[in-house]
Amino acid sequence: MAAHTTSGSEEAQIRALIEKRIPALAAKDVAVLTSDYARNLVLFDAVGPLRHIGSDAQAQRAAEWLSLYPEGIDCQIRDIEVTAGEDVAFCHYLYRVGGTMTDGTRVGMWLRATVCLSKIDGAWVITHEHASVPFDGKTGAASVDLQP
Amino acid sequence: MAAHTTSGSEEAQIRALIEKRIPALAAKDVAVLTSDYARNLVLFDAVGPLRHIGSDAQAQRAAEWLSLYPEGIDCQIRDIEVTAGEDVAFCHYLYRVGGTMTDGTRVGMWLRATVCLSKIDGAWVITHEHASVPFDGKTGAASVDLQP
Repeated sequence: MAAHTTSGSEEAQIRALIEKRIPALAAKDVAVLTSDYARNLVLFDAVGPLRHIGSDAQAQRAAEWLSLYPEGIDCQIRDIEVTAGEDVAFCHYLYRVGGTMTDGTRVGMWLRATVCLSKIDGAWVITHEHASVPFDGKTGAASVDLQP
Repeated sequence: MAAHTTSGSEEAQIRALIEKRIPALAAKDVAVLTSDYARNLVLFDAVGPLRHIGSDAQAQRAAEWLSLYPEGIDCQIRDIEVTAGEDVAFCHYLYRVGGTMTDGTRVGMWLRATVCLSKIDGAWVITHEHASVPFDGKTGAASVDLQP
């Protein structure tokens, strides 16, 4: 079996770090949504480009995203699984974002997320995050209507 | 700074685990492409569904993918970054897949990958993998023509 001792406390810290996004998205609290990222973050976001590099790019992306939803974003998270070593950790989960965009479009879609962290100066920091929906190889369309 | 001591040797092992996919895709070597996965793998693949659970599902998915390319798949990998603790690790990279499908369609596209591992009985095993392309929020199309 695994030699590593996954600490329940570390897992709980990382789970809390993810779950605090739910009220922050509802409240459009960009400070919470941009905390916990390393300056040298590599972000693979659900919409293009292929990647963003740096926490400043993530902050800009978060602000743009929130600006599309005047009343905030409804977020559900499920099936979160955290694996934490002493100073390296990762977690993955499914999440649903919903809301009404400024142009009146109603959005409700499930996505996948992977969040990878290192412990720096005693605190967990996100150095890599990957969010996406799959696509349909036959039509080339993003599959934004899948249910878990 | 980080308390963790990222071992060059661990990083090299994980990098080799990823890079051996390149000749295996060219040779359609399904045994290599299905090695290193934990039985309880959670796979977020670039095409639907939202997720696959278990190494058997990954093996089936790999066989299906290879069957679409009678002459094998050309794969390039770039910008691989590995973070390895004692027994938990993750890595991410960009990769390009190219080739000619059975129906004559020529494919050439860049994707993003995140691979998360735990050390079990002294060997690195993949417990989670996430591959995707971003999509265009305006058109809903998968962005299969991006360049890094």
